[in-house]
Amino acid sequence: MTITGPRKDATIHATHPRDAAAPVVPPGSRRVGVGIDEVHLDPSGFWGHRQHTNRRATLEHCRSWMEQLGWLENFDRVARGDRTTGRPGWQFSDSEVYKLLEAMAWELGRLPDDDLQQTYDTLVERVRAAQDADGYLNTAFGHPGLPARYSDMAMGHELYNIGHLLQAAVARLRTHGTDALVETAKRAADHVWAEFGEYGRPSICGHPEIEVGLMEFGRALKDDRYIRQAALFLERRGHGILPVRPLLSAEYFQDDQPIRSATVLRGHAVRALYLSAAAVDAAVDDGDLDFVDTLERQWAHTVERRTYLTGGMGSRHQDEGFGDDFELPADRAYCETCAGVGSVMFAWRLYLATGDVRYADLIERTLFNVIATSPSEDGRAFFYANPLQQRVRASAPDEGVNARAEGGSRAPWFDVSCCPTNVARTFASLAAYSAADDDGDAVLLQYMAGRVAVAGYTMDVETQYPVDGRIRITVVEAPTSGRLRLRIPSWSAAASLAVSGRSPQQVGPGWAHVEDLVTGDVVDLDLDVAPRLTWPDPRIDAVRASVAVERGPLVLCVESTDLPPGVDLQDIAIDTTSAPRIHGDGAEIDVRVRMTRNTPPGRVPYGAPSATTARKRIPVSLIPYHRWAERWPTTMRVFLPVE
Amino acid sequence: MTITGPRKDATIHATHPRDAAAPVVPPGSRRVGVGIDEVHLDPSGFWGHRQHTNRRATLEHCRSWMEQLGWLENFDRVARGDRTTGRPGWQFSDSEVYKLLEAMAWELGRLPDDDLQQTYDTLVERVRAAQDADGYLNTAFGHPGLPARYSDMAMGHELYNIGHLLQAAVARLRTHGTDALVETAKRAADHVWAEFGEYGRPSICGHPEIEVGLMEFGRALKDDRYIRQAALFLERRGHGILPVRPLLSAEYFQDDQPIRSATVLRGHAVRALYLSAAAVDAAVDDGDLDFVDTLERQWAHTVERRTYLTGGMGSRHQDEGFGDDFELPADRAYCETCAGVGSVMFAWRLYLATGDVRYADLIERTLFNVIATSPSEDGRAFFYANPLQQRVRASAPDEGVNARAEGGSRAPWFDVSCCPTNVARTFASLAAYSAADDDGDAVLLQYMAGRVAVAGYTMDVETQYPVDGRIRITVVEAPTSGRLRLRIPSWSAAASLAVSGRSPQQVGPGWAHVEDLVTGDVVDLDLDVAPRLTWPDPRIDAVRASVAVERGPLVLCVESTDLPPGVDLQDIAIDTTSAPRIHGDGAEIDVRVRMTRNTPPGRVPYGAPSATTARKRIPVSLIPYHRWAERWPTTMRVFLPVE
Repeated sequence: MTITGPRKDATIHATHPRDAAAPVVPPGSRRVGVGIDEVHLDPSGFWGHRQHTNRRATLEHCRSWMEQLGWLENFDRVARGDRTTGRPGWQFSDSEVYKLLEAMAWELGRLPDDDLQQTYDTLVERVRAAQDADGYLNTAFGHPGLPARYSDMAMGHELYNIGHLLQAAVARLRTHGTDALVETAKRAADHVWAEFGEYGRPSICGHPEIEVGLMEFGRALKDDRYIRQAALFLERRGHGILPVRPLLSAEYFQDDQPIRSATVLRGHAVRALYLSAAAVDAAVDDGDLDFVDTLERQWAHTVERRTYLTGGMGSRHQDEGFGDDFELPADRAYCETCAGVGSVMFAWRLYLATGDVRYADLIERTLFNVIATSPSEDGRAFFYANPLQQRVRASAPDEGVNARAEGGSRAPWFDVSCCPTNVARTFASLAAYSAADDDGDAVLLQYMAGRVAVAGYTMDVETQYPVDGRIRITVVEAPTSGRLRLRIPSWSAAASLAVSGRSPQQVGPGWAHVEDLVTGDVVDLDLDVAPRLTWPDPRIDAVRASVAVERGPLVLCVESTDLPPGVDLQDIAIDTTSAPRIHGDGAEIDVRVRMTRNTPPGRVPYGAPSATTARKRIPVSLIPYHRWAERWPTTMRVFLPVE
Repeated sequence: MTITGPRKDATIHATHPRDAAAPVVPPGSRRVGVGIDEVHLDPSGFWGHRQHTNRRATLEHCRSWMEQLGWLENFDRVARGDRTTGRPGWQFSDSEVYKLLEAMAWELGRLPDDDLQQTYDTLVERVRAAQDADGYLNTAFGHPGLPARYSDMAMGHELYNIGHLLQAAVARLRTHGTDALVETAKRAADHVWAEFGEYGRPSICGHPEIEVGLMEFGRALKDDRYIRQAALFLERRGHGILPVRPLLSAEYFQDDQPIRSATVLRGHAVRALYLSAAAVDAAVDDGDLDFVDTLERQWAHTVERRTYLTGGMGSRHQDEGFGDDFELPADRAYCETCAGVGSVMFAWRLYLATGDVRYADLIERTLFNVIATSPSEDGRAFFYANPLQQRVRASAPDEGVNARAEGGSRAPWFDVSCCPTNVARTFASLAAYSAADDDGDAVLLQYMAGRVAVAGYTMDVETQYPVDGRIRITVVEAPTSGRLRLRIPSWSAAASLAVSGRSPQQVGPGWAHVEDLVTGDVVDLDLDVAPRLTWPDPRIDAVRASVAVERGPLVLCVESTDLPPGVDLQDIAIDTTSAPRIHGDGAEIDVRVRMTRNTPPGRVPYGAPSATTARKRIPVSLIPYHRWAERWPTTMRVFLPVE
């Protein structure tokens, strides 16, 4: 009845009748993700709740901040030929509007709503009105009082902005069809083709995004020109054509070597991830298995040596970039929320291309521990960076525009505010990553409570996951053929699978297949989410002799708030002779309070071995990392020293 | 005969007849450092050799780079009213010229030379010719084709530049007397007083330096106006008057709180250290012991929690700044060379103010492990940042202008090239930090081979220090009264002191006094420089469960070059059951080669405890950290994991 299958299947192509209502639909792919209209998340589930908050609070939160700051007005100024100087916002602020439009488009596709529709239409009209006759669309360049078009390819972000417009248009095309936004996007893409196409200027944009936008827009419209344009941008990159400056190196822009020659992701993390996502699209559309293989190896190197326990990517604040292999400091982890989004984009495309379970595993890790961490419970404040250690109790959350929230509290908005709208569009399209049709098999990738229709199956998924490991899948409708395939997460030491009350079978990490299901069958998957200790690779110097506690897919952390009075977070050490125990939605573990060495006054903090005197053992509780700093500013640690 | 005295003596004031030829001479101070003309370093000694290389190679190296890049020509352009745009260099490039002039002035004072004098005179003339009639002097602002004077107080560096001009003039005043440079500096300082004085604009410069320059210039000229101006700048700071931008916060500029209210150094490290040095000057001149005490406490907090084993300061690349307490990563340690210079400036002033041996201890640590590390053996390439770990073998040294040498090899010049000229002026005036007259006692602070005349003593210091701990001091001339005071370094576990063959006496860290010396006496100090293991404070997460090896004042390191073939630096762990042994000018220690865990492909590098299999014990050699990357690009570690 159940079997554990191979890790991956190299075949790429198969035939599917229609485009799913999803962000990525490679034509003729053997694997197709579900459309967002094929999944209905339970609003009381972990993800359904967040999706609901996103719709109810975050969309309007983003819109009103952009209105207040003049980022929307920028479109009106261009439309009316305003020549006054002092345009508010960075050169990429247009993209925030497009990401918001993308989020709204997915939400309208998921669940129509007149008010939301009207807000969307009004926004689209303001954007459309700013478009030039030749399709050029930008509020920071190319108009009176602004720098000339394409006068700063390295940092101007003009094509980056259009990439986001195209992704928004894809959301609309796949959930609705052509509308004013799609028409606007089409004119913008045609302008890009005229300007940068085979006979245009052989340049690229400093921030990749246009590539992934053009690829999917071309797929959605079945217009090969856009795909060729994306391929041109991809091929031009890596030959050092962007001007560099101190601290903005060719590597920062991924312009240091051709994508096919690289062995690992490097430079600015979001740039690297968006670019890699587009590269998978191009490789798949070309049926270029060698290129897919190259990208898989780049991904693997990056995950094995440049990725945090949370799935976060980007170790450096200075250039928002990847560090060297095993340079993974907990306190200065950058782990930009947008890099989490980019990582999901890259991994999802590799999953569709290869069927490898590892991609879905990393997506789960990233969703629960990076993407879910960014927004506050109310959906109106966000983390930009997601460090794994907070040394200093943050000041109270700032109600204004933050530089970049580095201080241990979520902020309502940022000077560079890429993260809130990126979270918004990801939550709105989240269901698309939950399941896939793999050549007729129904594959459940992420366990989200709700109803899902895929590959002829309709299934109700009931679960309190990730707090509880029990997942009940009731087959409401079954196809005449086609298996159900379940992802058994890599962290799962013991999992059992039972069908309709028959005796459970143990299943190991990877894929578990269930055959011959009929309507009414109940599949019970029981994953062991008992808290466990996780050790870092010894090459990660920054967390040597420390362990983390995980529970199912959740990384846990200790906040100072949960320590007894008088105990400092920097003075506790885990007693690994005791196992962590379940406690609320987190865990409890025994620690010893260390007596830290007192350096003689005015001496550097290095000398004779520390004479640590362990005090009595006390239990401390850990909460899911994604909930940290929700109560009030604290100090926090994911990795705890071992006694 | 020998005694160990108190750590410090709170009295500040005493009377001295004349200004020493030294960078810092607080009027009426109880302690006065020696003049550079009172010390003759042996060119074969550790420091004498470097001073010789500095004079012979570095001065001309800096001059020719600045000529080649047009930073000198900038003065000519202003002088001839050139209106063309495209001025080369940053807005602070003038200061590099002034730091070079300061280095030349000290060198001319130390040992006159016609060629050097002519080079100096020519440079001074080019600078002088660019000065406006009202004393304003700057090549990046205030002239045709350039931004207006003082139009960017936060980042314009106009006053910063002048601060360096004043320090150069102090060097000239104290070694020679008035000349064209001094006159130019006087006009510039008068202009600053007219512009920013009691009735001028109440502003400050984003980069402190004018304060420390004005203080000493005022002392050297006995002109109280300059000292009042410095005090005004110091008092204005900390009230948020500089405009801030994302990533350039008030803290970055030390404009977040008044100097008197701060408890620790924070923000941009060089800025913080230069400012603090000036604050000590002001406190001492005012006889304000409370303020001195505040600054001592800021220094102590900074040293105890924000300082590297090398004495390096500044943990962050992003803002070249101090991090949080105990945020001291080895691999991303910034430890800018200029911050090392700033730290010596701050600590030296606190030593003069208090007589506390701790300041001289930190100066020694910083000189041997930061300042001596920056220049290459030939004095023609430099480190800007001084990390304690190099993970990736650097590419070959770049012969051109480097962004900031972050890549593990010294560079001949930088886009921001503050460090080479800062090293040059420090080496040229180095002898001034070696000894002091403390109310009639002769104090030897740093053991530099050569002859020193201080407090009536003339002494020959013979030593191979720091490689050898034996220091022989021959009294060539002795005063009728006054003791000899010797610094016994804090790292010295066992030291013995013997006078003229009498039986040696054990002395502990701190001060050792020798009384009743007469001409011909020989004092033998024997410090134990056997290699020793040094453990970090357990609150420094980044180097947990790791140790460093030190030898006397030298921090040692392992370079990959010195490992057997096939052994990777990231795979070795120290066997602390064996003691480190002397080996060349470094040490040798036994290590085990760990078998690092192989993360399953495509998995994050965290999981079950690593199954490490220790292989056979092998010895590896360590070299002084200041010599790393001298042979060819390597990987390097100061802290080694403990097995």
